[in-house]
Amino acid sequence: MRILGIDPGIAIVGFGIVDKQGSQLRPVQYGSIQTEAGLPVPLRLKQIFEAMQSLLETYRPDEMSVEKLFFNKNVTTAFTVSQARGVILLAAELAGVPIHEYTPMQVKQAVTGYGGAEKKQIQEMTRMLLKLKEVPKPDDVADALGIAITHAQFRAYISISEGVQK
Amino acid sequence: MRILGIDPGIAIVGFGIVDKQGSQLRPVQYGSIQTEAGLPVPLRLKQIFEAMQSLLETYRPDEMSVEKLFFNKNVTTAFTVSQARGVILLAAELAGVPIHEYTPMQVKQAVTGYGGAEKKQIQEMTRMLLKLKEVPKPDDVADALGIAITHAQFRAYISISEGVQK
Repeated sequence: MRILGIDPGIAIVGFGIVDKQGSQLRPVQYGSIQTEAGLPVPLRLKQIFEAMQSLLETYRPDEMSVEKLFFNKNVTTAFTVSQARGVILLAAELAGVPIHEYTPMQVKQAVTGYGGAEKKQIQEMTRMLLKLKEVPKPDDVADALGIAITHAQFRAYISISEGVQK
Repeated sequence: MRILGIDPGIAIVGFGIVDKQGSQLRPVQYGSIQTEAGLPVPLRLKQIFEAMQSLLETYRPDEMSVEKLFFNKNVTTAFTVSQARGVILLAAELAGVPIHEYTPMQVKQAVTGYGGAEKKQIQEMTRMLLKLKEVPKPDDVADALGIAITHAQFRAYISISEGVQK
């Protein structure tokens, strides 16, 4: 099963594509969609939407995994990020890719086995699980891979009952 | 010039289409896009996006006008509405329709001439300016028409310098 993990943003959208074969995880591709701060928001949303469509078409993930948004200190930024998140969810829905959402707590738990893990610990564990030489930069990319791993781990719990389908 | 005013939402998107000829305003069409509360958010975003595409194609507005989002008491709702707002802005951007944003204060000022106007006063003034028999229901529809009028009024101030183009 191929999972596309997404860390939503308006300036940087992190993405990480992971293949899960049995209990094995293999990184397929990862990186970021970036838009320029000076551009109008609707144009940036269009750029993100089109880049998402391109990713979905190129890598054809079976499922998408994205972090749930929570209250942010900067509410105006959170609104703008939510708008970007809207077009990201739309792109997956239009491509017929099922979407799964996880809380930051679930990501910590799934990647490190510990709900109180620090960001650095999650990133280091992400690196180890995917056998990468370095933690991908910027943080958004490492986070997106962590969100993909989270879905892979949650999927594992129901792999027996779904085994006949895949 | 034809203006599409939008009051964004996830359950109800109000829309109001107004033609401006000289200082005259004429209502062309108004109503709402509604999605069911029980459906998954990505599907509701898709329904809103496709309804917006249909509106844009059918009525071919020259410009779109939408209210700026501000801090809401219910932040979770505000995040969800922002996601809907994202796909609404995307639909207009993909259709090449310029987007203008106005604060609630600007809407009050433009429609009633008074920045401290009550919601009921704005709706009644909207009804009068468009020569409607009744205030359209639900509120989202009346609000969307108010936002369209706001853009028409702001446009008026620069109609001389733009007169050569239209």
